[in-house]
Amino acid sequence: MINAVEYIRHFISAEGRNLGNGILKVDALLNHQILPEVMQAFGQEFARRFASQRVTRILTAEISGIAPAVMTGLALNVPVVYARKKRPVTMSGPVYLAEAASRTKGGTNELVVSAEFLLAGDRVLVIDDFLARGQTSAALLNLVREAGATPVGLGCVVEKAFEGGRAYLHANGFAEVSVESLASILSMDDGKIVLAD
Amino acid sequence: MINAVEYIRHFISAEGRNLGNGILKVDALLNHQILPEVMQAFGQEFARRFASQRVTRILTAEISGIAPAVMTGLALNVPVVYARKKRPVTMSGPVYLAEAASRTKGGTNELVVSAEFLLAGDRVLVIDDFLARGQTSAALLNLVREAGATPVGLGCVVEKAFEGGRAYLHANGFAEVSVESLASILSMDDGKIVLAD
Repeated sequence: MINAVEYIRHFISAEGRNLGNGILKVDALLNHQILPEVMQAFGQEFARRFASQRVTRILTAEISGIAPAVMTGLALNVPVVYARKKRPVTMSGPVYLAEAASRTKGGTNELVVSAEFLLAGDRVLVIDDFLARGQTSAALLNLVREAGATPVGLGCVVEKAFEGGRAYLHANGFAEVSVESLASILSMDDGKIVLAD
Repeated sequence: MINAVEYIRHFISAEGRNLGNGILKVDALLNHQILPEVMQAFGQEFARRFASQRVTRILTAEISGIAPAVMTGLALNVPVVYARKKRPVTMSGPVYLAEAASRTKGGTNELVVSAEFLLAGDRVLVIDDFLARGQTSAALLNLVREAGATPVGLGCVVEKAFEGGRAYLHANGFAEVSVESLASILSMDDGKIVLAD
């Protein structure tokens, strides 16, 4: 069996590339190629960490959050919803909307979820590939609140701790939401990648 | 255990919505919400149908192809690659590019795959949520050819047979690629949804 934490830590150390400006290239595992068995191990680890939270639904954002979210959903046996960045033609009816500031594009990204798939009474675990400044995570958690549901946790595969996502969530109304990352990066200065112990 | 074919056929009949112009709303299963156990059954069914093809890699397109592709990859124990519609900042180095005509947007969509993740010698199974006119499928199969790899099959959850995707692939150099769909729709005229037997 794959140890999720050992795997991701080793992968970042051995194959992660620091592209500068806090950008970490882990395409071979998260953002372009997916190794399904590894992703399943990540999902099982999130399921273990949030086992006591009586999760009824998982929410993520397209695109790279989908694979870890689906594997967590498989382990917890709950539905997964992915927020869309553009409202597709098939999304009729009421929606919840949240905005997240975008670093790469400037301005804001919108996240949209159909009201059909986020219900008052749901206990929602948010899963994403990265936690960086916390903008996307906060937008997802805001969608949960807007629906009258309860955000019970946030799980991300890689946390860029030096970008302050946890503090941002704490300061923006989500202090009580439990945050779990499988690997945490303390610094990407000088072309290095320093992992937390 | 979930019977993939029965499930998708029943779902389309009971909950699929014909929005006109050949647009089928199946958001609750494929394009917005994902039921992980159902998706796993779809992946296992694709794995069974392509078991003899010695698949070494699965290729799909973001966004809604990711979940069925990952579950098929899990069943076949091979890596999955999802072609991107925009080249992300982390995608450095050589890429393969293909274009697919877009109905909703007009013009063309580009699909990009890093050359790192599609290798000559690979035997590639293309998985997607829909097969409609065959434009996206052909673009994915062209990416495989461009890499010098062998396209060994195309699996899609829902085929809109009345849009002629198979004939398009046949006429565009992929006559020998085996195509499998879990449910095939013969017609969406007059607000109805007619499934093939």
